[in-house]
Amino acid sequence: MIKTPKDSLTILTDIVLPGESNPLGNLFGGELLARMDRACSIAAQRHCHHIVVTASVNHVAFNKAVAVGTVVTVEAKVSRAFKSSMEVYVDVWIEDRESQKRTKVNEGIYTFVAVDHTGSPLKVPQIQPETELEIERFEGALRRKQLSLILSGRMKPAEATELKALFAS
Amino acid sequence: MIKTPKDSLTILTDIVLPGESNPLGNLFGGELLARMDRACSIAAQRHCHHIVVTASVNHVAFNKAVAVGTVVTVEAKVSRAFKSSMEVYVDVWIEDRESQKRTKVNEGIYTFVAVDHTGSPLKVPQIQPETELEIERFEGALRRKQLSLILSGRMKPAEATELKALFAS
Amino acid sequence: MIKTPKDSLTILTDIVLPGESNPLGNLFGGELLARMDRACSIAAQRHCHHIVVTASVNHVAFNKAVAVGTVVTVEAKVSRAFKSSMEVYVDVWIEDRESQKRTKVNEGIYTFVAVDHTGSPLKVPQIQPETELEIERFEGALRRKQLSLILSGRMKPAEATELKALFAS
Amino acid sequence: MIKTPKDSLTILTDIVLPGESNPLGNLFGGELLARMDRACSIAAQRHCHHIVVTASVNHVAFNKAVAVGTVVTVEAKVSRAFKSSMEVYVDVWIEDRESQKRTKVNEGIYTFVAVDHTGSPLKVPQIQPETELEIERFEGALRRKQLSLILSGRMKPAEATELKALFAS
Amino acid sequence: MIKTPKDSLTILTDIVLPGESNPLGNLFGGELLARMDRACSIAAQRHCHHIVVTASVNHVAFNKAVAVGTVVTVEAKVSRAFKSSMEVYVDVWIEDRESQKRTKVNEGIYTFVAVDHTGSPLKVPQIQPETELEIERFEGALRRKQLSLILSGRMKPAEATELKALFAS
Amino acid sequence: MIKTPKDSLTILTDIVLPGESNPLGNLFGGELLARMDRACSIAAQRHCHHIVVTASVNHVAFNKAVAVGTVVTVEAKVSRAFKSSMEVYVDVWIEDRESQKRTKVNEGIYTFVAVDHTGSPLKVPQIQPETELEIERFEGALRRKQLSLILSGRMKPAEATELKALFAS
Repeated sequence: MIKTPKDSLTILTDIVLPGESNPLGNLFGGELLARMDRACSIAAQRHCHHIVVTASVNHVAFNKAVAVGTVVTVEAKVSRAFKSSMEVYVDVWIEDRESQKRTKVNEGIYTFVAVDHTGSPLKVPQIQPETELEIERFEGALRRKQLSLILSGRMKPAEATELKALFAS
Repeated sequence: MIKTPKDSLTILTDIVLPGESNPLGNLFGGELLARMDRACSIAAQRHCHHIVVTASVNHVAFNKAVAVGTVVTVEAKVSRAFKSSMEVYVDVWIEDRESQKRTKVNEGIYTFVAVDHTGSPLKVPQIQPETELEIERFEGALRRKQLSLILSGRMKPAEATELKALFAS
Repeated sequence: MIKTPKDSLTILTDIVLPGESNPLGNLFGGELLARMDRACSIAAQRHCHHIVVTASVNHVAFNKAVAVGTVVTVEAKVSRAFKSSMEVYVDVWIEDRESQKRTKVNEGIYTFVAVDHTGSPLKVPQIQPETELEIERFEGALRRKQLSLILSGRMKPAEATELKALFAS
Repeated sequence: MIKTPKDSLTILTDIVLPGESNPLGNLFGGELLARMDRACSIAAQRHCHHIVVTASVNHVAFNKAVAVGTVVTVEAKVSRAFKSSMEVYVDVWIEDRESQKRTKVNEGIYTFVAVDHTGSPLKVPQIQPETELEIERFEGALRRKQLSLILSGRMKPAEATELKALFAS
Repeated sequence: MIKTPKDSLTILTDIVLPGESNPLGNLFGGELLARMDRACSIAAQRHCHHIVVTASVNHVAFNKAVAVGTVVTVEAKVSRAFKSSMEVYVDVWIEDRESQKRTKVNEGIYTFVAVDHTGSPLKVPQIQPETELEIERFEGALRRKQLSLILSGRMKPAEATELKALFAS
Repeated sequence: MIKTPKDSLTILTDIVLPGESNPLGNLFGGELLARMDRACSIAAQRHCHHIVVTASVNHVAFNKAVAVGTVVTVEAKVSRAFKSSMEVYVDVWIEDRESQKRTKVNEGIYTFVAVDHTGSPLKVPQIQPETELEIERFEGALRRKQLSLILSGRMKPAEATELKALFAS
């Protein structure tokens, strides 16, 4: 069965309470990382219908502080499925109360693995990207996977053919 | 300006962690009430673009226990706008990991008031229901408001014309 | 065995910490709902000596914001016992530090069901109200139960004899 | 003005949720210490009507593990007032759901100081113990204060006349 | 096997977030007691390699308020081992961000007991203090144990030979 | 002034409580990310003596689940300082209670920026790695920074000379 990124779309809208803030009065980074992890793991589970565990956080960029009281929307979608792992892209938006204008404040990439009850990896369905952005993220996923393997010492740079091509230009 | 219930739709999808459970291993009722309150207050704010405060919880029915590990989706929409208060309807769904089948486990009705920074009430936009369910909830809201006023001793049963009609049949 | 509301009196006095506040610096509504739920469930358990689960929140009115640092006292008592369900009334008070004067800020009505370990309902003891307020709440409980059944679609307005009488006047 | 210990009685009844447990499935010691601190600080504030800060925890004995799901009642009362400090005694009880029998599981002694907004100490009212237990705790408080001063190096054993008498027998 | 206090040294460095503060904007006393309990229990476990449970908090002195945003270092070391119990000393430091100067704000003494899975006490290794401070704390531990037994009514003052000697001077 | 990685070493040892677990009974990934963020931000602050904010999480690999009750040690050190940003490396260890053997379960790389009270970037001291591992991480930091700039679209692959060299072999 082939699924689309939209099938796994997970939306977590919530407000920032003072108990989740850092000493500067903004959303504490660790709390945001936790919310992103929760949304991404649900997206991965919706894609594969199995238990999933976080394998890695590949990249999270914090572009803008989020003040206490702000409405924060975390939106996660599977961007690419490999054999038993899935890359999940997560976008974080805030909205202005008066104008309702949305601004993107944060973006992250997580990887999850589907497992059975003993923790052994399970096969996951493949994915067919539909929108332009989904296609771009799908294509970038292979390069990021190679980078991740290099960073963790499980692949030699010379073997990362996709990445090599990128730098050959 | 007239708005629709859909304009205020707020989705809060999250997983149930053990730290949010009761001694029976299910989602603690108080934690669910808190999540519903957060989602409803965002829906009310999206409708009126003002600060809102919880005025009352009118009814919340717990139909089914929600086990740790379950994905819970809280969906809130403004059902009717009065002068400065708004009734918000919230539905709570769980989904089966393997079949992805959704089941409704809980439903609640909250009331919020729009206020300025001094706490004085502000006028809110009117609402135009669109779907059959939205129309049914819109129409029931007036009866519920009268009930709430009677329960809090601010209206005499004889004055509740909408309600009287209901029992006259 | 017949019990009195006083037998189930449950007092939960606590202070409001910043980690329990909303963005306006007051006690977060969801946190207060959770505290009320905890106190009410203990009152219900003290009445019936069984495990209890929250069946519904029938009405909670928020009359006054509660600032961080305030001492909050939640007082819950069973107001009426039905076959296996119990209505619990909860009053919330704050006290002024300097004058020690108490002010009521909130009132709520919750319903619990007594269950065995498999979740099947169990019979609960009947209750004999003693004070004037307890008698008033005891008598109102039947009307509220009918309202709740109507709101959840499990009773037709025409069958709610107690309620009909109320609006017939 | 002279007050009694009963004037400051503070009752915090609550249930133990899994999110407050230790890895053995019992109430986490640190969480119990925090609940005791909250109840004691309210008792001290009710005695003196001022802001209070924790000066020391003098003794807390853990006699019995408290399982998840248990109803725990923390009861705090000022046992003795000094110039600007107050000793608060706190007893912790659990109750058996079926028999409603109460068992004492824990006892603690905390010291608080009354302060103004700049943190300077303020005078507190004196206290008149009434029951036998209150008198016993009142009399022991002076010895405990001397012990505390010795332990923190602010008094020499030879100056602790009350304590010396105790050991002279 | 004989161990040293250094073998059990446990360091818990963390920042104070607003969600852990009291209404004055400082670290909430109960939260600090919980952090100290966690660090001390790890130190006790590192000494004896068994499960440990908190037996008592013997003394905690709060010397200085700790503001939100401060870096707090909790350092715990076993100070003396008895048959199956261990006294753990814990020092709490804050550091100035600009000068990196450390200030001691708090000191505490906890007692833990080593237990097996049924809760029965287990023997723990003896300890050999090395530094001057470790020797001083080791020697004081016996007096504190006698004090604790007297305070809990399990020893008569006349039997506390170590303590009597202290006051005989 | 030149500093060493050791100058910023931050150790956060803590136990895993049930309230911090995921539905499988292991440490919840989001909670671990939060602990790592706290330790890393303290390390960055100890290096530069300024307020720091999280700029990005560059890579976190989860190699092994951490069970409830486990002692977890998070160790963070600045690995390289740029103009106003610092890369921080964090290693996560668990220890076996009986053998006290340490196992590495997790590794992460975070980036922080030093800012003044208005949020403007401040210059940070340079760093001189000492151990073999510190030198290796120092040297890799430039490549990771280029990667991060490429991933966020702020650098073209062709400009990443360090990275190009890596893939040229």
